[in-house]
Amino acid sequence: MYSAFKFQELKDFCEKIFSCYGFNEEESRTITDVLLRADLWGIESHGMQRMIRYHREITSGMVSVSAVPEIVHETPVSAVIDAGKCIGQTVGVRGMRMAIEKAKKSGVGMVTVRNSNHYGIAGYYADMAIQEDLMGISMTNSEAIVVPLFGSHAMLGTNPIAVGFPADPVSFMFDASTSVVTRGKVEVYNKLEKPLPDGWAVDTKGHVTHDANEVLHNIINKLGGGIAPLGGTSEMYGGHKGYGFGILAEICTAILSSGVTSNYVATKPGENNIAHFFMAVDYGIFGDKGSIKASFSKFLRELRESPKSEGQSRIYTHGEKEHESTLEKLEKGIPIIDKTEAEVRKIAEYHNVPFTLKGVPCEH
Amino acid sequence: MYSAFKFQELKDFCEKIFSCYGFNEEESRTITDVLLRADLWGIESHGMQRMIRYHREITSGMVSVSAVPEIVHETPVSAVIDAGKCIGQTVGVRGMRMAIEKAKKSGVGMVTVRNSNHYGIAGYYADMAIQEDLMGISMTNSEAIVVPLFGSHAMLGTNPIAVGFPADPVSFMFDASTSVVTRGKVEVYNKLEKPLPDGWAVDTKGHVTHDANEVLHNIINKLGGGIAPLGGTSEMYGGHKGYGFGILAEICTAILSSGVTSNYVATKPGENNIAHFFMAVDYGIFGDKGSIKASFSKFLRELRESPKSEGQSRIYTHGEKEHESTLEKLEKGIPIIDKTEAEVRKIAEYHNVPFTLKGVPCEH
Repeated sequence: MYSAFKFQELKDFCEKIFSCYGFNEEESRTITDVLLRADLWGIESHGMQRMIRYHREITSGMVSVSAVPEIVHETPVSAVIDAGKCIGQTVGVRGMRMAIEKAKKSGVGMVTVRNSNHYGIAGYYADMAIQEDLMGISMTNSEAIVVPLFGSHAMLGTNPIAVGFPADPVSFMFDASTSVVTRGKVEVYNKLEKPLPDGWAVDTKGHVTHDANEVLHNIINKLGGGIAPLGGTSEMYGGHKGYGFGILAEICTAILSSGVTSNYVATKPGENNIAHFFMAVDYGIFGDKGSIKASFSKFLRELRESPKSEGQSRIYTHGEKEHESTLEKLEKGIPIIDKTEAEVRKIAEYHNVPFTLKGVPCEH
Repeated sequence: MYSAFKFQELKDFCEKIFSCYGFNEEESRTITDVLLRADLWGIESHGMQRMIRYHREITSGMVSVSAVPEIVHETPVSAVIDAGKCIGQTVGVRGMRMAIEKAKKSGVGMVTVRNSNHYGIAGYYADMAIQEDLMGISMTNSEAIVVPLFGSHAMLGTNPIAVGFPADPVSFMFDASTSVVTRGKVEVYNKLEKPLPDGWAVDTKGHVTHDANEVLHNIINKLGGGIAPLGGTSEMYGGHKGYGFGILAEICTAILSSGVTSNYVATKPGENNIAHFFMAVDYGIFGDKGSIKASFSKFLRELRESPKSEGQSRIYTHGEKEHESTLEKLEKGIPIIDKTEAEVRKIAEYHNVPFTLKGVPCEH
């Protein structure tokens, strides 16, 4: 079912495809880099699998290829960008670059973006700051599929929060939705026809449901119900906490960009209207960078080396799995499922681009 | 078991007591204000109940009454304070005031504190920013009682993250530990002899345990085991997410103050060595404050007014419960349990202060 493709071949192919839509060379490179980073990190849901969705959004005009994002507000430590419906990855990279420049000059930079589209994995932008030896934070809102605690109607997106901080030998890169699970996980359970675990999702009346198919049907048709916040459907396991972190993401993205909150995202025809947040901090404003980084690296090592639960062989720190996955996939290729390959073939046909990618059957 | 005491009488009493330890008038007022705010907000675990702990820490010299915190690093947007073992509330208020001043001048201010003690409820400091019409964030680390995901040894504190943002009619004030529950909750289950829910805590081998007494015994004696991160003891419910938010709190507090992480807090005799983080953002750096606040207030209202789960009568936004609790307790008094009253009586005796507080039996 899976075939492995060489990273460089996928890269060349995707850049070619994006240029066919009318993106310039740099834009095509950026979009491809964000997309394939997801596959390299092992986050299949946000990688090549998303090509078909971007294809639909670009060809339908939901994503504007010619949009020129505009800076609508700026101070030495902040900026607000109106993306003008441009693709999320290019304005995302621009937003984080601005935050990084401001952090280098003023110590901290915070940039919000409104009127944008999906920007891929939040961690990509946090990692951009790490590459500049800065602390980085990124968040995005998204279509409402998460219910507030005690609610039966989706009002929040899965609203990921990503945090990066440099460390040796592997930097800390934390990227987590503020829901108990992502929509992708519910889709996997649906494909496998497995019942959802308790507390993952609620039906249209707000009762816990185990029916993945029903949840997806309700989400897609906006009939009510949805995924629970991190911590689940009650206060017992902290559902109010995940719900609060979800609101934090709305503040930083939609509210601080004067954009729209998740309950209005993708509610008008032809508009996603997603909002993002980018923050970079030069941690040198708190002291000697070398010793700060060393002490953080030491703490991460202590976590990894601390006693394991019986039956567990390893304690991870965030970023390790992505790092190891990247090394593996650069060597062995990126596994892509048949269905995605077929979708990508059709996109190539659409552009009259010969499909020359050669996959090797592989395990996933 | 509970008696209600008038807020003003408790306030006068506590200020008197703290001045007996040698704190000056302003310090005594500050410590009392943080302490009683917890009771007003309904967070009994951090209110009068803590008097005995502070008494022990002050009289043993763990908290230094005469300490003069020192600013060891400063930029227009940041500062690092070495608390010199002073009480957490006074250096906490000073830290957030500095962050607020910096935010008013530069748009954002971030202040970290090391070598401190317990500072009470994190939300108090986020609320200080709200009172100045700013966004506020505060975090603290604490004695390690939380295990990393797949770990059997406590390495992280309960590490609360508090976020405040002004809104009408009630501001957003989110204050949550990054563990699935706080130690206080485990103590309540122990007192009631109730089994702990699945996924709250693990024993010394890292297996899920339901024995509250065992968990507390292990924590106190540092025998291993501990409370699970938000999301629990597996990835299924997002234990890696709570674990990541816990590390975020360590970065902002211990790492950025060049202090010590939770696994070293309270490990040396006579030293807590706790670290805090305070951040204020003038959200006017992102546009018109009036319209930003209005759009956030609208979103919170939409959340509250969204359809409820069957059987639920209300969806809360964070800060509402605290606001309503305050109004109720200012009118009806602050409920204090007999045991706490007895402890406070002894503290008064210690200082030769007549105990003139008069409680009225009440329900809790």
